[in-house]
Amino acid sequence: MKDTQAVRKAKEQLVLGSRILANEGIVDGLGHLSVRNPDNPNTFFQSKSISPEFMTIDDIMEIALDGTVVVGIEGEKPFGERIMHGAILDARPDLNCVFHSHPLPIIPFSVCEEMPLKPVMVYGSLFYNGFAYYDNPDVSSGTLIVSQEEGKQVAEALGDKYACLLRGHGLVTGAQNIPELVFDTILLIKNAEVQLSIEATGKQPKLSSSEEGLAFRTFIHQNALQRCWDYYVARAKKVMPDINDLTGI
Amino acid sequence: MKDTQAVRKAKEQLVLGSRILANEGIVDGLGHLSVRNPDNPNTFFQSKSISPEFMTIDDIMEIALDGTVVVGIEGEKPFGERIMHGAILDARPDLNCVFHSHPLPIIPFSVCEEMPLKPVMVYGSLFYNGFAYYDNPDVSSGTLIVSQEEGKQVAEALGDKYACLLRGHGLVTGAQNIPELVFDTILLIKNAEVQLSIEATGKQPKLSSSEEGLAFRTFIHQNALQRCWDYYVARAKKVMPDINDLTGI
Amino acid sequence: MKDTQAVRKAKEQLVLGSRILANEGIVDGLGHLSVRNPDNPNTFFQSKSISPEFMTIDDIMEIALDGTVVVGIEGEKPFGERIMHGAILDARPDLNCVFHSHPLPIIPFSVCEEMPLKPVMVYGSLFYNGFAYYDNPDVSSGTLIVSQEEGKQVAEALGDKYACLLRGHGLVTGAQNIPELVFDTILLIKNAEVQLSIEATGKQPKLSSSEEGLAFRTFIHQNALQRCWDYYVARAKKVMPDINDLTGI
Amino acid sequence: MKDTQAVRKAKEQLVLGSRILANEGIVDGLGHLSVRNPDNPNTFFQSKSISPEFMTIDDIMEIALDGTVVVGIEGEKPFGERIMHGAILDARPDLNCVFHSHPLPIIPFSVCEEMPLKPVMVYGSLFYNGFAYYDNPDVSSGTLIVSQEEGKQVAEALGDKYACLLRGHGLVTGAQNIPELVFDTILLIKNAEVQLSIEATGKQPKLSSSEEGLAFRTFIHQNALQRCWDYYVARAKKVMPDINDLTGI
Repeated sequence: MKDTQAVRKAKEQLVLGSRILANEGIVDGLGHLSVRNPDNPNTFFQSKSISPEFMTIDDIMEIALDGTVVVGIEGEKPFGERIMHGAILDARPDLNCVFHSHPLPIIPFSVCEEMPLKPVMVYGSLFYNGFAYYDNPDVSSGTLIVSQEEGKQVAEALGDKYACLLRGHGLVTGAQNIPELVFDTILLIKNAEVQLSIEATGKQPKLSSSEEGLAFRTFIHQNALQRCWDYYVARAKKVMPDINDLTGI
Repeated sequence: MKDTQAVRKAKEQLVLGSRILANEGIVDGLGHLSVRNPDNPNTFFQSKSISPEFMTIDDIMEIALDGTVVVGIEGEKPFGERIMHGAILDARPDLNCVFHSHPLPIIPFSVCEEMPLKPVMVYGSLFYNGFAYYDNPDVSSGTLIVSQEEGKQVAEALGDKYACLLRGHGLVTGAQNIPELVFDTILLIKNAEVQLSIEATGKQPKLSSSEEGLAFRTFIHQNALQRCWDYYVARAKKVMPDINDLTGI
Repeated sequence: MKDTQAVRKAKEQLVLGSRILANEGIVDGLGHLSVRNPDNPNTFFQSKSISPEFMTIDDIMEIALDGTVVVGIEGEKPFGERIMHGAILDARPDLNCVFHSHPLPIIPFSVCEEMPLKPVMVYGSLFYNGFAYYDNPDVSSGTLIVSQEEGKQVAEALGDKYACLLRGHGLVTGAQNIPELVFDTILLIKNAEVQLSIEATGKQPKLSSSEEGLAFRTFIHQNALQRCWDYYVARAKKVMPDINDLTGI
Repeated sequence: MKDTQAVRKAKEQLVLGSRILANEGIVDGLGHLSVRNPDNPNTFFQSKSISPEFMTIDDIMEIALDGTVVVGIEGEKPFGERIMHGAILDARPDLNCVFHSHPLPIIPFSVCEEMPLKPVMVYGSLFYNGFAYYDNPDVSSGTLIVSQEEGKQVAEALGDKYACLLRGHGLVTGAQNIPELVFDTILLIKNAEVQLSIEATGKQPKLSSSEEGLAFRTFIHQNALQRCWDYYVARAKKVMPDINDLTGI
């Protein structure tokens, strides 16, 4: 069965988003992106177990929200942590894509309780409603989020936020669509880099207000999002010519 | 109507400057450069809403100092913050180009009142007359500078300085010409990087004096400016072959 | 005499491992990797004295555990520190490969006694059983490990650990196979980077537990190792096309 | 007149050294390298005023130790700071090449009197006999070293050391030959990077001893120097194919 136009677009954005996040240094060999099936809100698309930098449209599986592989690939495994993606997409109908990776500038804020992540510049104010934290209560099965129970706990921890820090592990972000997720996540990491450099000086930043954040989020998403998406896509295509035939939006 | 030689040169420098600032890591998807029209001081040139890394000479609009688009491009939008460029070019007849972006090493100095940016090496002493600060008093419309009133406030904050830090937002620099602006801005960011690394140690730098700064600025602009411009241009052309036919100066 | 299939594979992995560690920024002009001969546990393979970034399969020598060159290359010298590789492979039959380099983020933890290296994220928890330290007691012959006696001292210091920090000098890591060594070492350096950024803030990280580390190590080595090895290989082949004919595993 | 073989080799090493120092991030648009004329110790070779990253063998001038241009290039200017190179080569017959640039990690140590640069790892112990400091007493003519008097003051400050920090300005290094200078300078900057990261933590490194430094310098210069030079040359040639016909040593 041939993909509908909406599904094809979702899959192309999944590839572009994965490549961009790798190209911009937000994800390395580990980490993964997912996008909800636009034709069926109860399944989502995600690549087989392969690094985002090298995934192609032929690597995409269709997965149910409980993690069951609906359309798999012969001889290939899904990501163990697809469970977490499904649990979040299940708990948050307003989100259509989820990303998880271990960007280094975010980690200190996940393990130092006295140093919460916060907006220190307009980039961070995209997350004006705050950040969520998840501290795995049972590590006997490892710190990865691979059981239904753990997936649901992360989704609960996320609540109505757009980013959740997993203690000593990494980051989960969610958004309405992939350009938004890419944009928000890249800017979040930059905000973390800046905050980390401020924390090293021991100085106190005057924070952006929630009001400012809300205003900025609204404005930026109307004006700069398309420009930045085009920029990220163009940069990725420059060094990854195999994605040249994929269309941005 | 064909561009005069002066206008053509200004537009070529606008492209080269934009590409260079992207290539040297001073601007990413957001941020923009402008240059005054050499044939009409009441208008300036700036690209349509596109990232500097990918702009071409065909993307350039002509804009009045109040932000009105004089010569636009069918179906394309100007930058919202062109208002700020116009307001500064209006208030400062000695400047012919303005740049705005959000370089990360500058941000801590914009949000930590107890940690002002200062020259800690010869690079920073290009700004021997100090730095200006702007703290947006009304963020209900977002932190971007898109209204006439805000544009004028930034221009007033800038005063007779060459660089203004916008709280939690970024940087504005101005100069007589684009090679000077590129040179000054790149060196300013390096000065900020060095100061930030010093602030993390808690040690006190022995500052460069204004006298030294003035002497350095005079000397460097006579001797090293052309060499550095050639260097930046050559580096950009190496990775962006589509600008090979543009001439440096 | 033609290499057996097992030897050929070991040599190919030695080249790939060396290239990858250079490509990922873990080793520069100095540093070296070795792998035990799968057909004879009393010898190991290592390149002649050449930087890992540029070594080829034709640069490989066979060396006895005491450092004697068994199969050399006409006119070429082995690494002085091959002694250390041999001593470790001799003392640790469970390890089949050893790596040594001077990655900058590891150095502070080797010279500051009050700041031991520790797991601050899942990456570091691969070393859940701790890190070893070696402080050269006699530097009259230089700090490099080139005598039998010094080689044995490092092996003793390593004990049952997988990583040893040499004071003011660098790092030694060991693993069962090269994909594991590459993976563990890259993640160790990232853990060190994160810990260093936390130490600069003066904040206390809540550490990962040994139990968590063990769980993570087991899990990750079953699931993510192949994915990451494929990723590292693909990245190296992209910029070093001369290794395209080597097979990963 | 055709160059003798010795002069040709010196000029080729001058190009390779300049390209390498740019390629390894030790010099940008500003900064310059020089090498003594092997056929006449009273003159030295240095490029015209051009960035090291783009200099070629045709850009080389011959200059007397007092800075007088002996063999110039029609229409081209020498570096203003050639004066400093000449003064050092005059004062130090044991040195045959001099380098000056403004590497960022070195600057904090040049402006913070309470934070002297020191060996914190074997790389820094190449400078086991210490670092010199120069604080320009008269900045009325700018901080650049362009007068005979200032050149001599820097040479005096350098004394019998191999590196001198210029307050708020940069670094001068000297060595017997260009491979040694390149190697020593790159390792010095890495030592500064590591020390800077330690200083940010407030921890005290246990320093390398002079004895250790001397031992390391002797050993490394006999064994690793050629390997590293080959490595630096190979890396530069990979991205700068126009220097492929130059021979390393």
